[in-house]
Amino acid sequence: MLDTLKQINSTSAFNRWAGFDVTQAERGEVELSLVFRPADMAQYAGFLHAGLIGALLDTACGFAAGTVAGNVLASHFSVNCLAPAVGEVFVARGHVVKAGKKQVFARAELFAQTGDQLKLVATGDAILVPVDAG
Amino acid sequence: MLDTLKQINSTSAFNRWAGFDVTQAERGEVELSLVFRPADMAQYAGFLHAGLIGALLDTACGFAAGTVAGNVLASHFSVNCLAPAVGEVFVARGHVVKAGKKQVFARAELFAQTGDQLKLVATGDAILVPVDAG
Amino acid sequence: MLDTLKQINSTSAFNRWAGFDVTQAERGEVELSLVFRPADMAQYAGFLHAGLIGALLDTACGFAAGTVAGNVLASHFSVNCLAPAVGEVFVARGHVVKAGKKQVFARAELFAQTGDQLKLVATGDAILVPVDAG
Amino acid sequence: MLDTLKQINSTSAFNRWAGFDVTQAERGEVELSLVFRPADMAQYAGFLHAGLIGALLDTACGFAAGTVAGNVLASHFSVNCLAPAVGEVFVARGHVVKAGKKQVFARAELFAQTGDQLKLVATGDAILVPVDAG
Repeated sequence: MLDTLKQINSTSAFNRWAGFDVTQAERGEVELSLVFRPADMAQYAGFLHAGLIGALLDTACGFAAGTVAGNVLASHFSVNCLAPAVGEVFVARGHVVKAGKKQVFARAELFAQTGDQLKLVATGDAILVPVDAG
Repeated sequence: MLDTLKQINSTSAFNRWAGFDVTQAERGEVELSLVFRPADMAQYAGFLHAGLIGALLDTACGFAAGTVAGNVLASHFSVNCLAPAVGEVFVARGHVVKAGKKQVFARAELFAQTGDQLKLVATGDAILVPVDAG
Repeated sequence: MLDTLKQINSTSAFNRWAGFDVTQAERGEVELSLVFRPADMAQYAGFLHAGLIGALLDTACGFAAGTVAGNVLASHFSVNCLAPAVGEVFVARGHVVKAGKKQVFARAELFAQTGDQLKLVATGDAILVPVDAG
Repeated sequence: MLDTLKQINSTSAFNRWAGFDVTQAERGEVELSLVFRPADMAQYAGFLHAGLIGALLDTACGFAAGTVAGNVLASHFSVNCLAPAVGEVFVARGHVVKAGKKQVFARAELFAQTGDQLKLVATGDAILVPVDAG
């Protein structure tokens, strides 16, 4: 499952550019990580850009959904920014809340890592639609 | 106002990398554009990545809020993906729905441009918090 | 179309209790109204309760979706509370943003009416799933 | 804390009408219950109305926020409807995800109870603004 997701991850040009790494995967659960590159990825105050926060949360939700429902497309995602996204590495953990035939509901948390410390900086929800759901 | 936003836009490393351009700005309203680079910006099916969809919508909301409330930070944003984000250029239009002292509510639409045609592909909402709101 | 929605509205016990009235309906657009009864419908400060704000916005979205997609069920809705919901009558206007086969995206606005004045107090988004979509 | 919330709950006309009961409260966590009355509270298919789903989730979030931040007002809430809300009693559990000075982020889950069985039927997120936050 991890290998499948790593392979899918490598087919996304944006994920390759950003350097998303799929670090764990089980049925219904996925972990991604990203090494922060301030020169490419910062917003105006130097924190991780909201677009990358959203990308990590949405991808974690989508990959978690993929482990139970095959190919999916996000139809909705929302992001709560709880604290400034300051860190050396960012870790996103997604899990499936409910997998239906027409829609999969998933949720993810984003942690900023500095040294050994993880701090919760954002949460997200997504609704994924199985691509072959008719 | 347009020059101010262009200047702020240029201070965001991610916006520079992506090539966000602020094309219009009035009090409470902003337009951004992005030239799609598939080799950097695609998701696995070749469409514009959800992270960039979110980044454009969130930035359009944030800049629109900035025209009425000065510096702001997004605390929440949500994205509805209405249609595959396929196009040569993407245009995001944001406007302020309500500007309060503690929170500014904004909304944005994302259009995919192919030739002269604009197609609505996503909508977004954001809540922005004025940075100096105490 | 108006008569059909009035009939559907009358089959919801909660809508009957609250007194929701469908006042306008066209393809993709619906208007509802509610006469505020403080003794039943207020939250702790005396304003219209968030549950009723959500019910009006969600129903306006669902009925608007119903005009293009038949029977639907809401899978997601979100509400932005822009101003205290103070008024004698509340008017919700919903419209379809995009109707797909698997999902209908709709949006609504809630106005508080005092005398002849309408004030925007909340906005909402909903995702509706056609019930017979397979 | 439980007594304080029960007292606040009793000041909301809508909560009294519906019969919301605050059954547990600790710092940052709250549980509510509602006995389903189909003749008042159903949507057109006989399930618990989305307005009441939203009211329970929003109230659980707001009361959880209240345990750490005093009086709050919801500025945003969103609801995911995971399964038909069918049950004799509904139980909502809310908890604070992050309490900031300007905004409190909370999350809640709604369970339908039939006999001894609890089934997750909806989840919700809310952003609450402390009323005296200046």
